[in-house]
Amino acid sequence: MRYSIEGIEGLPEIEAGADLAALITAALPSPLEDGDILVITSKVVSKAEGRVVRADDREQAITDETVRVVATRDNPGGVPTRIVENRLGIIGAAAGVDASNAPEGTVLLLPIDPDASARAIATGIRSLTGAQVGVLLSDTLGRPWREGQTDIAIGAAGVHVFDDLRGRSDASGKPLAVTMPCVADELASAAELVKGKAAGVPVAIVRGLGRFVGDLDLPGARSIVRPADRDMFRQGADEAYDDGYRAGFDEAQAEGVLRDA
Amino acid sequence: MRYSIEGIEGLPEIEAGADLAALITAALPSPLEDGDILVITSKVVSKAEGRVVRADDREQAITDETVRVVATRDNPGGVPTRIVENRLGIIGAAAGVDASNAPEGTVLLLPIDPDASARAIATGIRSLTGAQVGVLLSDTLGRPWREGQTDIAIGAAGVHVFDDLRGRSDASGKPLAVTMPCVADELASAAELVKGKAAGVPVAIVRGLGRFVGDLDLPGARSIVRPADRDMFRQGADEAYDDGYRAGFDEAQAEGVLRDA
Repeated sequence: MRYSIEGIEGLPEIEAGADLAALITAALPSPLEDGDILVITSKVVSKAEGRVVRADDREQAITDETVRVVATRDNPGGVPTRIVENRLGIIGAAAGVDASNAPEGTVLLLPIDPDASARAIATGIRSLTGAQVGVLLSDTLGRPWREGQTDIAIGAAGVHVFDDLRGRSDASGKPLAVTMPCVADELASAAELVKGKAAGVPVAIVRGLGRFVGDLDLPGARSIVRPADRDMFRQGADEAYDDGYRAGFDEAQAEGVLRDA
Repeated sequence: MRYSIEGIEGLPEIEAGADLAALITAALPSPLEDGDILVITSKVVSKAEGRVVRADDREQAITDETVRVVATRDNPGGVPTRIVENRLGIIGAAAGVDASNAPEGTVLLLPIDPDASARAIATGIRSLTGAQVGVLLSDTLGRPWREGQTDIAIGAAGVHVFDDLRGRSDASGKPLAVTMPCVADELASAAELVKGKAAGVPVAIVRGLGRFVGDLDLPGARSIVRPADRDMFRQGADEAYDDGYRAGFDEAQAEGVLRDA
């Protein structure tokens, strides 16, 4: 069991309207094969889709992309950090609005519908090359409890996003009741190690994991998002405490009023 | 930029007291090279260290491994899920106490000190092979907000656990102010894709990322853990709400008592 990951060099700077399937295919170091998986940094998709706003409008852009504020933290001398749930259900800082690798004076928003973008790119590349490839769009996110960031999948097409082992057995025959590795996120992380942040290599080819490649109508990365009502960490601890405090205070006052009356 | 990951097959079942450095070295498909990184499933380290208890003692073992309860959730017909901070500072379900791939009738605990275990194994393998390799110990964890699990690093030796880009620039020259990819977690995830849960392949070799390999006294995986007092999600939302509710209720009552007095 062995696979390799290679960064694709030599892609041009991506402009709005760019045909990513054609540009990536042209930049390939070797012909694609069935079962290859392309992991594409979502920023180049944002650029191709013209998802760029002026840096001055960053805070408004975050607000516009936000469905729900999950937690906030003040930054001495700067704007507060906002951890939010965005349109895509993804929880992260600043709703994915980011200045790095964006054109000067601008910030990039996430693609409108990363699963649809992944499907369009996969369809284009399958058509151009004849190879049954999978496509993931990745983004870089912080996470609770652990320092640093990892890349995760925000879009997927033609890739099984989970290795669903529920109902299968471990090496000794015991059932793997709750095990469902998130292949898509693991692949995004694996690809980050060759793409890097500073290198300007936005696409990597994963070769040798064809067992995770399938039809383009497989569930996308949206299926990785856990609905907030089933999430134990759907709100920051301080925010949840404050909500509880107000509710408890009001309840005690109401009881007091009733008793006094 | 290219790297490969290969699962090491043919390792024997690991018993308490096993010399993992020697067993892994003997099972290698090809000689190790400077810059190779071995990603070892922590379960085999637990087995070698005899970190096994009877399955009947699982709930007590979780309690013993727990430093702080972060969140709990009832499971209809079963024992409640406990998300806890364990001795190592790692937050996860059941303090890492796990029955899969454990001997029949038993559960495995995490290694006592995974960074020390990684260092001992790296020292042994470097001594046996002469190759300056890095070693990571991995475990499988769920995470907030996203379904499924990914592998993360709970032990590290001779590997830069972060790719510290703070102060460096992106491809267009803009500073990458807060970017610090967690290489160790990304490597653990990348290796999971060949090790799998069902395949009984507990070790993988990563080849081609020697730039992340360094001295054995580099900070270990413990340095990835964010202290709870700096974490916005240090407690489950329900638990934080309940704590706040009680505090608010008590405060309103105390004020009422003062007013009445």
